[in-house]
Amino acid sequence: MNAAYQRLKTRHARIATLGEASAMLGWDASAMMPQGGGAARGDQLALLAGMMHELAIAPEVAEDLAAAEAEGEWEQANLALMRHGHIRATALPTALVEAVSLANSRCEKIWREARRSADFALVRPALEEVVRLQRQTAQALAAALDLSPYDALMDGFQRGVTAAEVEPIFATYEGFLAEALPLALEIQARRGPAIRLQGPFPVATQKAMAQAMSARMGLEYSHARLDESTHPFCGGTPSDVRITTRYHEGDVAQALLGVLHETGHALYERGLPEAYRRQPVGEAAGMAAHESQSLIIEMQACRGDAFLGFLGRELQAAYGGDAAAYDGANLAKLWRHVRPGFIRVDADEITYPAHVILRFRLERALISGDLAVADLPQAWGEGLHQLLGITPPDDAQGCLQDIHWHDGAFGYFPSYTLGAMAAAQLMGAARAATPGLDAALAEGDAAPLLAWLRVNLHAQGSRLGFQDLLRSATGKALDPADFTAHLTRRYLTD
Amino acid sequence: MNAAYQRLKTRHARIATLGEASAMLGWDASAMMPQGGGAARGDQLALLAGMMHELAIAPEVAEDLAAAEAEGEWEQANLALMRHGHIRATALPTALVEAVSLANSRCEKIWREARRSADFALVRPALEEVVRLQRQTAQALAAALDLSPYDALMDGFQRGVTAAEVEPIFATYEGFLAEALPLALEIQARRGPAIRLQGPFPVATQKAMAQAMSARMGLEYSHARLDESTHPFCGGTPSDVRITTRYHEGDVAQALLGVLHETGHALYERGLPEAYRRQPVGEAAGMAAHESQSLIIEMQACRGDAFLGFLGRELQAAYGGDAAAYDGANLAKLWRHVRPGFIRVDADEITYPAHVILRFRLERALISGDLAVADLPQAWGEGLHQLLGITPPDDAQGCLQDIHWHDGAFGYFPSYTLGAMAAAQLMGAARAATPGLDAALAEGDAAPLLAWLRVNLHAQGSRLGFQDLLRSATGKALDPADFTAHLTRRYLTD
Repeated sequence: MNAAYQRLKTRHARIATLGEASAMLGWDASAMMPQGGGAARGDQLALLAGMMHELAIAPEVAEDLAAAEAEGEWEQANLALMRHGHIRATALPTALVEAVSLANSRCEKIWREARRSADFALVRPALEEVVRLQRQTAQALAAALDLSPYDALMDGFQRGVTAAEVEPIFATYEGFLAEALPLALEIQARRGPAIRLQGPFPVATQKAMAQAMSARMGLEYSHARLDESTHPFCGGTPSDVRITTRYHEGDVAQALLGVLHETGHALYERGLPEAYRRQPVGEAAGMAAHESQSLIIEMQACRGDAFLGFLGRELQAAYGGDAAAYDGANLAKLWRHVRPGFIRVDADEITYPAHVILRFRLERALISGDLAVADLPQAWGEGLHQLLGITPPDDAQGCLQDIHWHDGAFGYFPSYTLGAMAAAQLMGAARAATPGLDAALAEGDAAPLLAWLRVNLHAQGSRLGFQDLLRSATGKALDPADFTAHLTRRYLTD
Repeated sequence: MNAAYQRLKTRHARIATLGEASAMLGWDASAMMPQGGGAARGDQLALLAGMMHELAIAPEVAEDLAAAEAEGEWEQANLALMRHGHIRATALPTALVEAVSLANSRCEKIWREARRSADFALVRPALEEVVRLQRQTAQALAAALDLSPYDALMDGFQRGVTAAEVEPIFATYEGFLAEALPLALEIQARRGPAIRLQGPFPVATQKAMAQAMSARMGLEYSHARLDESTHPFCGGTPSDVRITTRYHEGDVAQALLGVLHETGHALYERGLPEAYRRQPVGEAAGMAAHESQSLIIEMQACRGDAFLGFLGRELQAAYGGDAAAYDGANLAKLWRHVRPGFIRVDADEITYPAHVILRFRLERALISGDLAVADLPQAWGEGLHQLLGITPPDDAQGCLQDIHWHDGAFGYFPSYTLGAMAAAQLMGAARAATPGLDAALAEGDAAPLLAWLRVNLHAQGSRLGFQDLLRSATGKALDPADFTAHLTRRYLTD
């Protein structure tokens, strides 16, 4: 480890510490801040972002990167990530970065109104500007990274994953879906309707229950908080992770399952390698890896038969009411109900990938220029119909439903389904390596699962890319067959 | 306004914006943060403090200050404050600043244990080091500012106020106290005992009531939050002010009066001049001015007869119970009870200045070298006995009770009593200028008082020093006779 590399590590620790400050202020803005604090908070976050960028692109960085030498696998991976990050940070002219930031925040504001009034025409000019600038950004990054423009954007969310890898995976899933969906609906109908849970579910009880279940999954509240926000998320820092949810007195599922989802994200952050804290290699391995961790907790563990039985007993003890409704098998009917719909975030496990596949195809075409923003609503309707056989009644339930594109996030969507697939694959490997994993979950004990994830996934940081991380943890690259096998067991087996 | 001055304004806005980020993170650390986040938070705050200091002492600043020209009273005052701040920031060698920071945080940790075990010997070596470094600091600042060493420290909390001004004010008060205290106790005994309020007072009701009363004083909760912390404080930023308190189910007074105190601080921050936000001249005019604002709300307005009558009715409506106990006159007996005691923060309005006078004399002697740390416990006991006729049974109730010195804060204590005196003087001027001020308070309406404070105090920012601010608002410099007249009306009149 030479002096140049040591200087780079110090610089990255500084950048990451500013990032922590920024993350806490972002959490506060969503979970705590009174409305009147918004303008000043925007200034604070912009200043911190600017300072982080200045530190990342200072001329000394290029010199130090040229001279740096690191020893050992971890330090070498860290240096490689520094180089990769530096290419991304310096590839874009400042004027473009500023134009992107302005266009995104302008479009996002208009989008809120456009979605409310289901009026695509309202946001179209602003979205055209966002897409135009994203194309420029993609081209500049592509040239610097030697990737295709869309891959260069995707690389910002899930380093090293390319559209060429994703495309066949998604095509295979489309084929599976065409056969699986009608079958799943048929079997579901045969199983008969679920018994509804009878509320009200007092918010104070929901909070206590959500925190208790999250703690059962392994989240230590000496290093975490659970609060409320309009849009649930996981924020904060690895030693002080902040998750949020929202409560409705009439619905016990949304907050609870949402907290368990965010708990998966939080556990990943908590388990990142302490020795590389505030270094690139000590960070999470990207958004698909992150989503795999939220979904392995929420979808694989907590919505699985073993844990649902335990959870039902806990819920019945907390809320009283009809014991049959809280039976694990009934909760499975309620919380694993399959129904093709227009809204991605409300989708079940089988149809969710269809929403992602649609967006992946459309955003690639938008970035390549094969699709004009003006043609988006029609392409959306046709694409959804092809995948799920339904057509949205308006654009609010179609191409206006997600914030992502309207905030300039292109290349992010595939992470959701790559994560869902990885979660199934990781759960299979964890089960194979850990006898008693499901028996423990049936007692509300996630410790065996977490122990496996800690070692095989969390503690790996960003040492490996997404595919190599899966190879290291499961013996193979992403294999969508593990996901379809999981769905087959859960939805297609009588 | 030339280019050099414009650059300085931009730089100060940047420093202040980092200060805002830091203030929010400090609030979070006290009110929200799980314990496990402490170490990382320390790093974040230290980094921001370091960056603010780097920005303040960069070589360009001296050049720009030499070349800067400002026009108009406000801009000229702003530039003068920049120059003053630059002298303070550059007067100390970095090695000394770092040594001070280390010694303070080390001593503060040991002090917590020493106070718990009432063991002065435990903290004595660490406090000796703190005092040694404070002497060095005071001497370096004194040379740069052309002040005496103690005045140079006091200038950091209340710019421009000197010990030579404070000394006769405190001596006069000591004389007043010697006559007033026995008389107040005699009159109090004659008035007979108060009826105790019967709890419990549910915490949820206390919270709602504290926030409602604080809003009545004029705090807009679209720009504020009320939360809980071990040590109540007012933090945050002018557009997003955060106050805290702590609740005890058996006691309705502590949280409520504490919130009203912090509300006074918060209203000051909220009323600072928007046009000079993030500039030195737009900040509050120092700690004595700040304390005058917390005390004018808590002591002058809310513990005054007019408001107590209203508050009693509100409390009785919220908690029920004996109406006679909630009568304003009974609340006055309870919440304006005079009793000489050992603990400053528990002291009544008459004896509080004695605690401050004691500390002022002792800290001056510590900084001048006339008093050795080893002799502090004895000097404390003798000093308190001379002022109040009582001697603390141990050092936990004596020289170990306050964090201030053990955290390196010398020159701060006088602010409390200067603030109390200024509050009485400002209240007199507000009353004289605002017919109906007390009639409004009797209806729970603080708007007339706040309107006067907004114009005459809050909106002045730091344009004027403490004494000139009082002259501008009340027609004269600090006049302790206004405070003793207030005490005479409230405690010495049958």
